[in-house]
Order: sequence, then structure tokens, then C-alpha cells
Amino acid sequence: MNAAHLDPDEFRRQGHAVVDWIADYYRHVEEFPVRSAVHPGDIASALPLDPPAGGEGVEALLADLDRIVLPGLTHWQHPSFFAYFPANTSGPAILGDLLSSGLGVQGMVWATSPAATEVETRVMDWLAELLDLPQRFRSGGAGGGVINDTASTAVLTVSVAALHRASHGQARVDGLRGQYTVYCSTEAHSSVAKAVAIAGVGSQQLRLIPTVSPGGPMDVAALAAAMTADHAAGLVPTMVVSAVGTTGTGAVDPTAEIAAVAAQHRAWVHVDAAWAGVAAVAPEYRGLTNAGLELADSYATNPHKWLLTTFDCDALYVADSAALIGAMSQTPEYLRTRQSDAGTVIDYRDWHIQLGRRFRALKLWAVLRHYGSAGLAAHIRTGVSLVDRLLAGLQKDARFTVTHRQLSLVCLHLTTGAGLDADNTATLALMHAINDSGAAYLSHTSVDGRTLLRVAVGTPSTEERHIDALLDAMRAAANNVIPETAATAAAAAHTATDEPAGR
Amino acid sequence: MNAAHLDPDEFRRQGHAVVDWIADYYRHVEEFPVRSAVHPGDIASALPLDPPAGGEGVEALLADLDRIVLPGLTHWQHPSFFAYFPANTSGPAILGDLLSSGLGVQGMVWATSPAATEVETRVMDWLAELLDLPQRFRSGGAGGGVINDTASTAVLTVSVAALHRASHGQARVDGLRGQYTVYCSTEAHSSVAKAVAIAGVGSQQLRLIPTVSPGGPMDVAALAAAMTADHAAGLVPTMVVSAVGTTGTGAVDPTAEIAAVAAQHRAWVHVDAAWAGVAAVAPEYRGLTNAGLELADSYATNPHKWLLTTFDCDALYVADSAALIGAMSQTPEYLRTRQSDAGTVIDYRDWHIQLGRRFRALKLWAVLRHYGSAGLAAHIRTGVSLVDRLLAGLQKDARFTVTHRQLSLVCLHLTTGAGLDADNTATLALMHAINDSGAAYLSHTSVDGRTLLRVAVGTPSTEERHIDALLDAMRAAANNVIPETAATAAAAAHTATDEPAGR
Repeated sequence: MNAAHLDPDEFRRQGHAVVDWIADYYRHVEEFPVRSAVHPGDIASALPLDPPAGGEGVEALLADLDRIVLPGLTHWQHPSFFAYFPANTSGPAILGDLLSSGLGVQGMVWATSPAATEVETRVMDWLAELLDLPQRFRSGGAGGGVINDTASTAVLTVSVAALHRASHGQARVDGLRGQYTVYCSTEAHSSVAKAVAIAGVGSQQLRLIPTVSPGGPMDVAALAAAMTADHAAGLVPTMVVSAVGTTGTGAVDPTAEIAAVAAQHRAWVHVDAAWAGVAAVAPEYRGLTNAGLELADSYATNPHKWLLTTFDCDALYVADSAALIGAMSQTPEYLRTRQSDAGTVIDYRDWHIQLGRRFRALKLWAVLRHYGSAGLAAHIRTGVSLVDRLLAGLQKDARFTVTHRQLSLVCLHLTTGAGLDADNTATLALMHAINDSGAAYLSHTSVDGRTLLRVAVGTPSTEERHIDALLDAMRAAANNVIPETAATAAAAAHTATDEPAGR
Repeated sequence: MNAAHLDPDEFRRQGHAVVDWIADYYRHVEEFPVRSAVHPGDIASALPLDPPAGGEGVEALLADLDRIVLPGLTHWQHPSFFAYFPANTSGPAILGDLLSSGLGVQGMVWATSPAATEVETRVMDWLAELLDLPQRFRSGGAGGGVINDTASTAVLTVSVAALHRASHGQARVDGLRGQYTVYCSTEAHSSVAKAVAIAGVGSQQLRLIPTVSPGGPMDVAALAAAMTADHAAGLVPTMVVSAVGTTGTGAVDPTAEIAAVAAQHRAWVHVDAAWAGVAAVAPEYRGLTNAGLELADSYATNPHKWLLTTFDCDALYVADSAALIGAMSQTPEYLRTRQSDAGTVIDYRDWHIQLGRRFRALKLWAVLRHYGSAGLAAHIRTGVSLVDRLLAGLQKDARFTVTHRQLSLVCLHLTTGAGLDADNTATLALMHAINDSGAAYLSHTSVDGRTLLRVAVGTPSTEERHIDALLDAMRAAANNVIPETAATAAAAAHTATDEPAGR
């Protein structure tokens, strides 16, 4: 027997040890500083320079995880992780992904593992139903869903599909000639600019449309003007990205209005709802997250952010897969199969950039079966209500000015009474103080020159006491970064007009 | 407590059940037909139309895996899986990946989990050492390695870097204008054409260079002529992909000669050694796999194919990360960190398309520690020696003509004595007979109009008896697809000149 063969008994023994280690990690995750305190090179210098000689069991790996790796981790599953957006994991998702690793099948074409394709199609339909997405994104007609790794990859993928459609199939043959233009708001995620660069469109052909308010939704009149001007200049308006829940502030672009403008130019409308989209499992948020989706060509949301599905799991839906397949398909002889030739199956390799693909639907399947619609909605509502609690606390302290609130995301700054620069310095100092302490982890953004702290709630282990502790930490840090006199001035300057936008 | 919280005791119980299920799967994997026998829609129709109500434990999922999913899987870990290339998984890799899922950290920038970055850098250096890659691909200088999902993504990524370098940074700003040309042989993987389409280069600017023999290495004189002609026409020769181990036949392009030609045009040289590259863990194959690498700009090989590391794990190395980072970097305020601003750390998000990234280095770390250089080399040698055994068997039967052999890949066809069309028909019929039987799984390719069966060995569970069984199945199937008289003619026509090329 090949010594590399997986021995079932040995796997069972080591697998139990790893499962136990993970269970213990979750029992103790709260005891770690949220953000790692190591310095650059600390971890590398603890690792041997030469490759290992082999022969080490999983116990040695676990010991090094405890000794070397854990101090070097920023703990995204810590209940006081409030930075970026949450990256939920959960028991069912971890185990679903473990099954995918264990089975080790490739679903690049239907024939290479029919269940990997058909379970994915069905599970993506279930998710569409749970989110109440329009019928056009379900399978059975021209559209359907596919799992990608990230929303970044999704926006690149649909960019290429949009170029294919706008060029009537010529883009992949001729290449680009600077004629195609892409639109998103100044608050859209940086992945749009990255996609435009990778797809060869060029940043000169990316129009960053202003927002109607600082950190707010796209100004559709400005979009219409830009598209009209480009068309008049002989360019081809190709795609508009509507952000449903921007990364900075959670702003929601008006997809329906955007789509109406885009339709005049036959431009592709992609809705990037990477973080916020999954909130639609709770029906009361669908007015926010799903407005206008019936007019969009594609839609992406990430169950790996706020829907308990271990990274990577981006859910990309298209209304008509023809442009996607037209842009992506390459069929050398060694990838031809009888079922593909007959056109009776989905070959997901033609729906994305990669060829190889693992059975990622298993983890989403496991999550949907474990939690169901009620459990998923409860998780989303917990995040929102924890932010209600955070806001109530912040509003009792005049030094904190909340500028934006959307679902489980809050943006705020310190008001020093000494002007914008002083506010920005104090706000960043507060963030660094909290992050350096290890008690919680926040991130920041900048809107029209103003530095804002972002508090994003949604890790499943977060409870009310963690919100209360964050409030305490913020007040204590504020004491250190705002001089006493400034604080008094701030209190005087604070008015009732500081109501947060959005919900 | 949020009901979505991971309960350690419940996770432990369910995790053990999943580990046991996987162990049982490996105990019984050989009993399944290799290729699934289901028809399109069979699996989907066994799944409920409506999303689950929730509340199901992992036991229900495992029961449905047994009942619905397993019959719909093509078993890539089956010892008689010989199609495509192997997609190795292994105990250490499965458990390393489980740890990554369990920790649920994001390594998009250094600060979001320093260990995720620094372990990856070190483990990629170890792999470079184990493969004896040139110093330029190690960290510490301008170069280094990064884990991607697939070699397809890797070739897209370096295409964008090559365009950035060739355009002196203008490509990402201006977009493309049809001026950049890319080169690979007619036998290169279809991912090159896909990358060229996605990156906006266009297939008209992709030069498919002929090979020196059917299914053989690139004709470098033809490459030189094409690059010179393009340059004379005012185009910019931008990148050449040298295939080390083509997918069809395992051919190895002459990287050093290619690089010498490319250097005249300052074109980027990417070596795509997706499958064959990892063979370099055994020193005797380095002359084949590593020749000329010291002249290449980038190099990719997939531990997830033949090096026991569960998909997805493509190892991409660049000699100088400047062009990669220059092409990929996007830094909105919310992704700025103090360490990144100081330039003292690697932020891998600038090395690839995605922003989010899981801790994939854990599985490669686990594999290298478990097997070590000797264990990995033994695994590679097992695959090669099993193919020696297969070849010896094939050579005793005049009906089988072996056209190519490289490492653990063999290409062959049936010789009917009735001409090419009859050979092709019989060869495909033999493949379908074996695949339909479930006893083994082969794939095919086509070289200059001739249909070839591909037998790719390398699954860790494959033993000599599986090779012997394959030979028996092939002989039996040949009896059915070649008429008796033709077989006699074939035997007469068979000569000693049918030696396979390569090794």
C-alpha cells in the first residue's frame, strides 16, 4: 500500500483530536486579545527555516498552533470582533466543509461529480427562496446561481459577462479598445476598481459617481448624465454596479432607478450586496435589500459574511447565464463529455474563472438545514438588535457622534469641539487604543475627509455584555484622547440633529 | 446567547460523527463505481424543492449523503480513478483545512491575522526548497510565493501582472487597446485562452504556437518568428506561457529557450507546471520539471493535484512581486493599516484577485510536516512506478499503441488496422465501456485528429492490483470493440517503433 494512503483508523483518531481542539478554541476564544499583538516577523521567526523532515502527527501541529499561531491570529470569531464585516463560521458550515475536503471531488463539469453540480443548483435555489430573490435568479429558466469564492471574484466575473454582452461577443475575440465604460458610486467597494483593472477596461473608463450625501447612496441623476455623456462621446456604457450596503457606511444604492437609467443604454446592472444581502432572510429587511432586484442582471451576496457559512461562499446569481457562459466557456477535447455535448446539464466551470471547483455547496446545505429560515432570521435580528443597544449607549455620551447606521453597522466619530482635524486625530487614537488593548477590534473609513469608526456586529458569539463592554471601553478611551476642556465644548455643541441616517 | 453560537460540546459530538463518516468513506471508497452512473436530474429530483425548515443535525445530512449524494459522485479518491489528473487529498490536508475552517480567520492583509500571512510565506518557501525552485522565487528578496485556488486563476493573475509591466503601469489606467500579444503552444491548457479573454487581451492577440511533434513541446523557432512579426507590426509581445507537463500528453516546453526568445522582447515568462511541477520533490525529475526556471518570471504548480493537499491549493511564485502588486493593489481607507503603510509586511490581497482569503497554508503546512521530503518523493515515485507497470502490460498487447508517457501519465490508442477513423471510434468506445462499467475512470484527448486515452495515475490509494485490474478491463473491452480480423491485422502492423515519447 502507498504510504500516502489515508488510513481510516489513524484518520479517525487524529480527526477527533482536531475536532476537540476546535471545540476548545470556541470555549476559550473570548480569552484571547481580539487583534493579534505580534510584530512583523514574530511568527515567521518562530518557524524553522528549513522544511520539516516529516513524520509529525497532528498533535505536533496542534501544539504549534497553540504555541506559535494563536498569538499571531486576529480572532474573527471572537465575540468582540467588530472590524470590517463579520466572517461568520458555524458548526454546520465547518462540518459541511470538512465533508467537502474529505470527499475530495471536483465539480468542474457535471460528469465529474453530478451531485456536486445538482446539489449546488438546488441549494442556491433554496437560498434565493429564503432571501425572496426574484424568479429570474432561480434555475429552470435562463438564470441561476453559482457559488464563487468572493464578491470580488463575482464582480470581475459579471464584468466579463457584461463586456461580452455589450460587444455582442466580440470582446473575447478582439480584446478591448478603451470603448467600454463602467459605473459605480464613490462609495462602492474597491473590488469594482480592481475588476475594471483586471478585465482590461482601465480606470479611465470607470466612472465614480458621486453620492447624494456623504457616505450615502449613488446620485442617479449624476449617473444618467455620465452615461449620456459617454454614449455621446462614442463610448459604450457597459455595466453599473449598485451597492446594497456599502463597505464604508452601509449605504444602499437605488437599484430600480439605476436600472431604469442603465436600460436606456442596455448596460448590465450588477447588485453588490456582499454584506447586507443576506439580511433578507428576515422579511422586514427585504424592502431595504431587495428593492429593484427584478431589474438587475446579476446579484451577489456572501453567506460567508453574515450568514454563518464558513469562508469561502459568495452566492452569485445571474438572470441570464448566456453572456456568462459565452464569455467564459473554453472546451478543449479533454473537457468534453457526452452530457455537456448534449446540453442537458450545467457545467459550472463555464460560470466562473476557475476550472477546478470543490463541493462548496455542502457547507451551505448544512447551514440551511441546521438553522432553517427561522434560525437564520433570528441570527440577523440578533445583530441588528445588538446595534440598537450600542446606539442607545452611544447616544447617552455627547462625545460620540453617530453618522451612519445600517442594519448591524454603525459609523461614528468623536466630536472634540476643536475642529475636523482634531476630531479625526482623536477618533483614530480611540480606535488604536481599543484595538491595541485587545478588548475589542474596530476598523475605520473616511467620508469626505472625516474619519469614521466602523462598528460591525454579527459574530454569532456576540452577546449584550460584549456590546456593553465595548461601550465602556469606548468611553474610557475617549477620556484619554479628548482633553477635558474639549469634551465640555463638545457636550455643548452636541445637538439633536445628529441622528444617524439609514437603518 | 445567540442561538447561532457554536456550542463546543455539540460541535465535538457532531464533529466526531463527521470524521467517522469520512473514515468509513475511505474504508469503502473502492466499492463504489468510480464514475457516477446517474442521469441528469436524478440527484436534483431527490432533493426537496423547498428550503429546509431547519433543526436538522448533522446525522440527517450524513444520511442524505449516503442515500442521495454518494450515488451521484464520481469518486476522485477511488484507487481506480485515472481520468484528468489526480486531485489528491490526504488525512493531514483534510485536517489542516478543517483547522482553517474552524479558526475562521481572514488573511487579506497582514494585520487581520499576521500568522495567516507569515505561515503562508514560510510554508511556500519550504515548498520552494522541497521542489528546488530557484532562489528568485523565495521570500526575502523581490519574489515569493502565494497560494491561489487554481492554476487557472494563477495564469490570469500573472497575465495582468505581465500587462502591467509591459505597459509601464498604463494598462490598468488606460485599459487595453489590442496592442498586447500572448503566446503559448497549441497544447497549453485552455486556462491560458480563458485568461486572455478575461483580461481583455482578446483571442486574436493570443498566438497558439505549433509543437515540434504531435502533442509535443512548443516549437521555439515558431515562437521567435511570431514574436518578431508581432513586434514588427507594432504590437507588444507581453507574455509567453511555457507548459511543463501539458494536460493532454504531459509535454514539457523548453523554458530556457523560450525565455531566451522572450527576453529579446522583455516579455513575461510564466511556467505552468500545474500537474508535473510537484514531481520535483523527487530529485531525479528536476531535470525535467525545473529546467530554465531561473529565467522565468513566474511559476505555478498545484499541490492539490499530485501532492496530497486537498483542493484548493495552487502554489504561485513570482520572481518580482512589484508588477503583481502594481497591477492588483487597491487601497481604500478601510483597508489601510499601520503595518501596511509602513511597508514592513506582505498584504496578500495585493497578490491576487480576491480580497478575502482563508488560512489555506494550514493544509500545506500539515502535509509537509506529515510526509516530509522523503514521504512526498515516495508518493510521486509510486505513481511513476505504477505507470511503468501499466506500460509493461500494454506493451504485451499489440492492439494498444502508446503515444506519450510522462511521469505518471500515459496516452494511448487502439490500433484496429482499419485506419484513423476506425481507431478513434474504437478508442472512444473502449473508454466509454470502461467508464460505464464503473470499474475504472479514464479521460481522453485529441492530438492532430487522433483520439487518445489518457491514463493518469497518482491517487494515493492506487496499488499494483488496480493497475492490473485496469489492464484486464482494457483487454476485455478491446475484445468487444475491435473485430477479430482487425486485431490480427493490428498485431501484424505493430512494430518496435511504437516507443512512447518522454518520461
